Amino acid sequence: MKCLVAVDNLLLGTQQNVEHLSADNRFKLVVGDINDMNLLNDLFVSFQFDTVFHLAANSDISISHKSPSIDFDNTFKTSWSVLEAMRIHNCKKIIFASTSAIYGDVTEEIHEDFGPLQPISHYGAGKLASEAFFSSYSYNYGIQTYIFRFPNVVGGSSTHGVIYDFLRKIRENPEKLIVLGNGQQEKTYLHVSDLVQAILYLSSTENERYNVFNVGGTDTINVARIAEIVLEEAGAKHTIEYTGGDRGWIGDVPKFRYKIDKVLSKGWKPLLNSEMAVRKTVQELLTAKMTKLDY
Amino acid sequence: MKCLVAVDNLLLGTQQNVEHLSADNRFKLVVGDINDMNLLNDLFVSFQFDTVFHLAANSDISISHKSPSIDFDNTFKTSWSVLEAMRIHNCKKIIFASTSAIYGDVTEEIHEDFGPLQPISHYGAGKLASEAFFSSYSYNYGIQTYIFRFPNVVGGSSTHGVIYDFLRKIRENPEKLIVLGNGQQEKTYLHVSDLVQAILYLSSTENERYNVFNVGGTDTINVARIAEIVLEEAGAKHTIEYTGGDRGWIGDVPKFRYKIDKVLSKGWKPLLNSEMAVRKTVQELLTAKMTKLDY
Repeated sequence: MKCLVAVDNLLLGTQQNVEHLSADNRFKLVVGDINDMNLLNDLFVSFQFDTVFHLAANSDISISHKSPSIDFDNTFKTSWSVLEAMRIHNCKKIIFASTSAIYGDVTEEIHEDFGPLQPISHYGAGKLASEAFFSSYSYNYGIQTYIFRFPNVVGGSSTHGVIYDFLRKIRENPEKLIVLGNGQQEKTYLHVSDLVQAILYLSSTENERYNVFNVGGTDTINVARIAEIVLEEAGAKHTIEYTGGDRGWIGDVPKFRYKIDKVLSKGWKPLLNSEMAVRKTVQELLTAKMTKLDY
Repeated sequence: MKCLVAVDNLLLGTQQNVEHLSADNRFKLVVGDINDMNLLNDLFVSFQFDTVFHLAANSDISISHKSPSIDFDNTFKTSWSVLEAMRIHNCKKIIFASTSAIYGDVTEEIHEDFGPLQPISHYGAGKLASEAFFSSYSYNYGIQTYIFRFPNVVGGSSTHGVIYDFLRKIRENPEKLIVLGNGQQEKTYLHVSDLVQAILYLSSTENERYNVFNVGGTDTINVARIAEIVLEEAGAKHTIEYTGGDRGWIGDVPKFRYKIDKVLSKGWKPLLNSEMAVRKTVQELLTAKMTKLDY
């Protein structure tokens, strides 16, 4: 019987997110850290995985300016640990969650072969460093590799990020919504349901040894509009105030536009555009996750 | 008084290489590993460095197919250690020895902004991973950064590499010189004296926050020709035999051609072309280093 083993240190994830799977004996949650090579070795021996989905990272980009080791350990070293376990245990297929942040502060439309790659956040650096070793491991050991470069991904299970923060803020301050930056940061947002669909579809239909895909929508949305949608959906009447400056934090990339011709040509496209993805996420957080948000 | 502190674990370097400096009190050799953060912290406190030249790496690319942790520790993690020491001790200028190997197996002429970056050796991966964090550290902490992407560098202090190997081989086998691959691997070779000149010149004349340079010659030389030069200079009459295949080892890039318009436009150019650099190195190894080679 095929089964899925999820390994999570629950630093940013929560057990509730997978509670609906707990009765399914094809699913197992292991609470632990994948930088623990003993744990990883035991799991590879016990389950003889044929495929690894490596999604572990510090996804809270803004916090590592003060503590870069967070991204060294959680965004980069996790990749190295997974690759070493795969090499040692002869596992030959991996799907990796990479990011638009590897491209750095670039305003033009970006395709997969773009250069130079000069990330401005440690998160982006950790992901690019991971890609570097995915490339050499794939070549040296014949590991079939699928690199998906994610845009901003949103969904009802978020535990941080702009939408989550705005909802938390309007609960804490009943009058004003304080937004970091000038509100003009403009990016593509993808709903997690579209992302999962892209990963499953492309990693089963594409068959190169080394595959790289920008996954995203064709449109963008700015932070000011996200703030409006949050207030609309929450039925709130807050005044929006901006702290100013062209970016939300050090390492934030203010504008970003993907070229996704490659994934479109493979027959995938998102069902929700950026505005729909944001709106759906606000609704999901407001309803299903009320308890978690303590809204 | 300005002074220079060299830190070397002597894994590939030798104490003899700097013996001529031992009487100069502006120079100090510390035998130790820069992944030892206690050592590094002590040195940064004692000397309050204004500039770091980070040259440490596993430069023997072929050996890490079987032991990738060599490049993880020595090529990548050394960079991380240096960057952390600089962040903690507020040091604001670094010169980094990067490599053509970050570009991977590419046949076209390569400029500095080339993409995608898909290294095929762990050495190339470790250097690209380093560049990723140099980029984010430079941006986050205002560290002025000079990335020099080296081609094949040769010189009389070599302790490995194609020329050193050929000289060792013709000593061990008096009749045949066995060459890995088909001899058609074709790359740019730069003499270390030209490289040092490039680094000192460009890191003092250029002044961007983040500087990236391909350093190399405008020509290439293939391995068959290198073998001929070695035999000529050694006055040897060996038959040359090729093991076949388009590359010397897994992770070797068979052909490589740099675009060096950028460094040429800044007023630097190599004094020696690839053939001259190789020939000079053979002569240097044959004369000054006879003892070391035990030739």
